Amino acid sequence: MNLKKRLIYEGKAKKIFEHDETDKVIIEFKDDATAFNSLKKARFRGKGELNCQISINIFKYLIKHNIPTHFIDVQDNNSIITHKVDIVPIEVVLRNIAYGSICRQTNIKPGTILKEPLIDFYLKDDALEDPLLTKERIKLLEIIDMDELQNIENTTHEINKLLKEFFLKMDLNLVDFKLEFGIDKNGLIILADEFSPDNCRLWDLRTENVNMRSLDKDRFRNDLGDLIAAYTEINERIINYMSSN
Amino acid sequence: MNLKKRLIYEGKAKKIFEHDETDKVIIEFKDDATAFNSLKKARFRGKGELNCQISINIFKYLIKHNIPTHFIDVQDNNSIITHKVDIVPIEVVLRNIAYGSICRQTNIKPGTILKEPLIDFYLKDDALEDPLLTKERIKLLEIIDMDELQNIENTTHEINKLLKEFFLKMDLNLVDFKLEFGIDKNGLIILADEFSPDNCRLWDLRTENVNMRSLDKDRFRNDLGDLIAAYTEINERIINYMSSN
Repeated sequence: MNLKKRLIYEGKAKKIFEHDETDKVIIEFKDDATAFNSLKKARFRGKGELNCQISINIFKYLIKHNIPTHFIDVQDNNSIITHKVDIVPIEVVLRNIAYGSICRQTNIKPGTILKEPLIDFYLKDDALEDPLLTKERIKLLEIIDMDELQNIENTTHEINKLLKEFFLKMDLNLVDFKLEFGIDKNGLIILADEFSPDNCRLWDLRTENVNMRSLDKDRFRNDLGDLIAAYTEINERIINYMSSN
Repeated sequence: MNLKKRLIYEGKAKKIFEHDETDKVIIEFKDDATAFNSLKKARFRGKGELNCQISINIFKYLIKHNIPTHFIDVQDNNSIITHKVDIVPIEVVLRNIAYGSICRQTNIKPGTILKEPLIDFYLKDDALEDPLLTKERIKLLEIIDMDELQNIENTTHEINKLLKEFFLKMDLNLVDFKLEFGIDKNGLIILADEFSPDNCRLWDLRTENVNMRSLDKDRFRNDLGDLIAAYTEINERIINYMSSN
């Protein structure tokens, strides 16, 4: 086991440390939660460990289905060893159902099931409050080549198909999710960051109670309570499903 | 001449009246000015007449170059007769140089000359503060068919080529502009609204003084003064150019 070394970067929900091998890093999941561009902040004891466990299992599932990710191995209860990547400064959001920010930005009704999944790109820039980007603006800002963007878009649709089915098997409806991608030492674009209830919406199909169905960060955003119970439920359903498949 | 009849619609800078012939309307240009989603308001005596004259000449120039527009005839000093159209609820913005909102929404430096013109689409919705739209969102919201959007995009590039050259002949740099399109009784998409210093940026190539060069609504937005003098200058250069060509 590697000891955690020098802190390279601290984000809102994660810390990144050096690894003995310079092409790897250690990512630690924090208990901190932020919402609405950090206007709302809180800490939930145990969230870091839960998001770590959930991300590990989802990365393993995606890797099994030939999606390249930065995940290498478990480090400890709340941290993982990953490939070191250059993060593409774009947040990729895929929506199956309209909910949250898109309903404030357009006149689409919350809960509308989209005819086909919608992918939005946002600039990763806290000072600018992560503005929406068109493909033409991505090209203009020279953030990434258009063929690499197409690659990211295709991979995001593929991940959606895999995870929609995965979560449906455990009675969870994958409403939307946010991904980040990175470029590895070989120049390949791979899935990075995390996949946890912090950056997706999962609705419990076992309840019709709108205030109970959200098993994700909306419990914090919308003051629905029981965040840790919700994340624990997600983690347990995933563990149960994976142990029997 | 038709008398102005029932008011159909009053916008921030224009009024629309019924015409005796039901497939036509009369558009009156107001002296009112608004900026920053109506947070800033003022009235400039004579602006309506100037914008009317400028729009008439630009519509005439575009029609001569085979761009279909809603313009039919002059009604009086501050109003025109146009085809009645259903306005497509999208504001089409083309930028040759980055300035204004895009510099607040991305980290591009004001004054950057774009390698190729950038077209952005915004939803015409004051309550939502005219949010930026991606093509995927336009498709999702079913605002317009994708081939019609492509048609609008092509026409906007064509208008840019024509007007960049047109304004350059009178020592004006066309920085950016906003267009609106409408669907006429035959289902054709045609240029509607207006083309005036209210919805474009024109920089005077005869001065290098940054505070003097803006001959457009930035004089109001950025408190540069002399708005009517600037609009009069644009109107006169256009009249001089058109009378000698």
